[in-house]
Amino acid sequence: MTLIRKPVTGMKDILPAEMEIRDYCIRIIKKTYAEFGFQSIETPCVESIENLTSKSGGDNEKLIFKILKRGEKLRLSEAKSEADLVDSGLRYDLTVPLVRYYSNHENELPTPFKALQMGNVWRADRPQKGRYRQFMQCDIDIIGEPTNLAEIELITATTATLGRLGFRNFQIRINERRILRAMAKYSGFPEERFDEVCIILDKMDKIGLDGVKEELLESGFDAEAARRYLYLFEGMEKQSDSMAKLSWLEQELSRADAIEPDVIPNLRQTIETADRVKQAEFAIVFDPTIVRGMSYYTGTIFEIRMPELGISCGGGGRYDGMVGRFTGHDVPACGFSIGFERIILILMEQHFEIPGKPGKEAFLLGKDLPSDRLAEALSEARAEREAGKDVLVVRMNKNKKFQKQQLTEQGFTEFREFYAHPLGQES
Amino acid sequence: MTLIRKPVTGMKDILPAEMEIRDYCIRIIKKTYAEFGFQSIETPCVESIENLTSKSGGDNEKLIFKILKRGEKLRLSEAKSEADLVDSGLRYDLTVPLVRYYSNHENELPTPFKALQMGNVWRADRPQKGRYRQFMQCDIDIIGEPTNLAEIELITATTATLGRLGFRNFQIRINERRILRAMAKYSGFPEERFDEVCIILDKMDKIGLDGVKEELLESGFDAEAARRYLYLFEGMEKQSDSMAKLSWLEQELSRADAIEPDVIPNLRQTIETADRVKQAEFAIVFDPTIVRGMSYYTGTIFEIRMPELGISCGGGGRYDGMVGRFTGHDVPACGFSIGFERIILILMEQHFEIPGKPGKEAFLLGKDLPSDRLAEALSEARAEREAGKDVLVVRMNKNKKFQKQQLTEQGFTEFREFYAHPLGQES
Repeated sequence: MTLIRKPVTGMKDILPAEMEIRDYCIRIIKKTYAEFGFQSIETPCVESIENLTSKSGGDNEKLIFKILKRGEKLRLSEAKSEADLVDSGLRYDLTVPLVRYYSNHENELPTPFKALQMGNVWRADRPQKGRYRQFMQCDIDIIGEPTNLAEIELITATTATLGRLGFRNFQIRINERRILRAMAKYSGFPEERFDEVCIILDKMDKIGLDGVKEELLESGFDAEAARRYLYLFEGMEKQSDSMAKLSWLEQELSRADAIEPDVIPNLRQTIETADRVKQAEFAIVFDPTIVRGMSYYTGTIFEIRMPELGISCGGGGRYDGMVGRFTGHDVPACGFSIGFERIILILMEQHFEIPGKPGKEAFLLGKDLPSDRLAEALSEARAEREAGKDVLVVRMNKNKKFQKQQLTEQGFTEFREFYAHPLGQES
Repeated sequence: MTLIRKPVTGMKDILPAEMEIRDYCIRIIKKTYAEFGFQSIETPCVESIENLTSKSGGDNEKLIFKILKRGEKLRLSEAKSEADLVDSGLRYDLTVPLVRYYSNHENELPTPFKALQMGNVWRADRPQKGRYRQFMQCDIDIIGEPTNLAEIELITATTATLGRLGFRNFQIRINERRILRAMAKYSGFPEERFDEVCIILDKMDKIGLDGVKEELLESGFDAEAARRYLYLFEGMEKQSDSMAKLSWLEQELSRADAIEPDVIPNLRQTIETADRVKQAEFAIVFDPTIVRGMSYYTGTIFEIRMPELGISCGGGGRYDGMVGRFTGHDVPACGFSIGFERIILILMEQHFEIPGKPGKEAFLLGKDLPSDRLAEALSEARAEREAGKDVLVVRMNKNKKFQKQQLTEQGFTEFREFYAHPLGQES
């Protein structure tokens, strides 16, 4: 019998060098978020199929790894469709499980509830470089905080974490779903097509302002509406910074009575406060072109932009409607997700050195070591460990020089040799 | 639309209090094993169905959560059996994935390879109290070390870890598959039925020596063989300790030429050395009735016995044949698994206090705090975090007294209040 040596399609084995960096990042992330009062939780990797297909997961619902019913419940001969065969599946995100968890344990949890989840999710995506079908997500969420204190804390905690992991000069780009709607309303797009407008706007970074205009017209939107829409973006581009952009936009949208009066002041406060209290070197920037895919966002939305990567490296937003859909009563919620796998990718490419790693020492044991000498070597290893070192104890190979060379490549810097006779080399 | 609030049958949500203990244990386990030179690795939770059903998993192969094929590969109308529908499943242990991983990456890994795996596994067992269908396993394995240095290191590292988690006065009970075979041979049982004899012996702790004898006779074994077999156990029981038992047994088995000469001296050295170099308060005890279920063990086998629990709380052994079955060439291997979930259960029941936890401080923000005061509060929170405290910032509730009471129950010991006017209470 032969085993299939490769992992299943699209998933990967993690080698020790990467694993060390992952474990380090997990430690820093958990520690930093705990300082901000976030509490770790965990849900099963398997969710009932009803929850996974409840239309909260967007396109991810098409990518579910589904789990076959077991025992008597599986009736293959009577099964007419896939749905008859399965009762559960692997989670494709941590948001649906969080909302289920919260609705299940609401009475046992504090208000507001600040949750940290680090866990694998699975998506049967087309395999491609750097994207895997099993990957770790790292989400923080604040459930039950209606004010922008939630946004400020999420941004401060997440950026503090990234700063501790050595990231500098990144950006938090922030926008508001209600501003997106107000801009569409201002322009005169029909309300039932606001989502379509946003989907086109979302391509801005690829196709530019002219491309957006073209697509709007191609999609049959009114030319005057498209003109007014572009006028807003062009007007903001002329402003010097985020605050100036917001002021200009506020004036325009208010004049047309297109926006609730508290939206922009609220976003302004979020940006200003997050900038004042930050614990890392980053910039927070208002970006009216940020859309974010998931339909459940209702307010603020934000993304992390790393100088090392053209693409977003995490993000989140406010989703006040979602918990209520499940619990029956409205509960405000806001979350921020770090693109854990991308963070690891960047650190691996930068040959990241974990700070404060213990020294690595190797003990090489000569042939036919009597019990006493073996115990002596192991006792000395214990003493070295107690002194804060990592000690590997291995048998000495015939080619000792080559063995030491290999151990050096693995990061061992000190060596000790033990022979059958305390003072002698092997004969 | 309503969500199903409960987790899927047999799996559980982990609440913050348990999660804190789990995270703490994971940290200690990873740190301690790293000191011994074990390297963390990870494999996907999903394995190909061929590997999961390769007869290396014993009865666990009956408990696989199987994953439905996707897209064109799923041909429901043509499917004749379950096997036509699935291409993969959730792993039921970490040993099969480890062996696949090793055979896939042998050239990139050091020899010997000391691996640490902490990860979830899934078994569609009948749900029962304290046993879940998703649970964490924690395995260390040494691949490529033929001598008992592997056993000694596994036992020393695992017991050091348990010691750091606060466990005292536990036992490592150790035996040897080759001793089990030798005892059966000595007694005159037919070789092809040795496994059956061991399955009956495995019940010793429940049915006692007389029960074992009875079952042997009921199963049609020769009465004289049963008598000789029991004579060995009775003989050992009369000895004062592990070393005396081993000496007596060695004499008996050697006289009948039933055992290879190195087996018992080797086990004796393992026990003596592990006892001499130990980094925790435990006893290592030779127990000739330990059998362990998995068929792949070839040499030493061991279990952890906690005073808090009647049952085994982890175990392992040598499985020299298994890697070779997959790689095509023999590679010695030995592993030790901590019963992670049982450890957590014990710690939860003992209301375990995590040592060195940072102090918890709560900042309560009064109503209508202006931007400046909000930023001030958050800056002070930052300063407290930098001084090593965990700081939760929340809005002040109307019933402040009750809020503080609840926070106190959650472990907060210091409070600060912030109002719109620096000196004043709210009007």
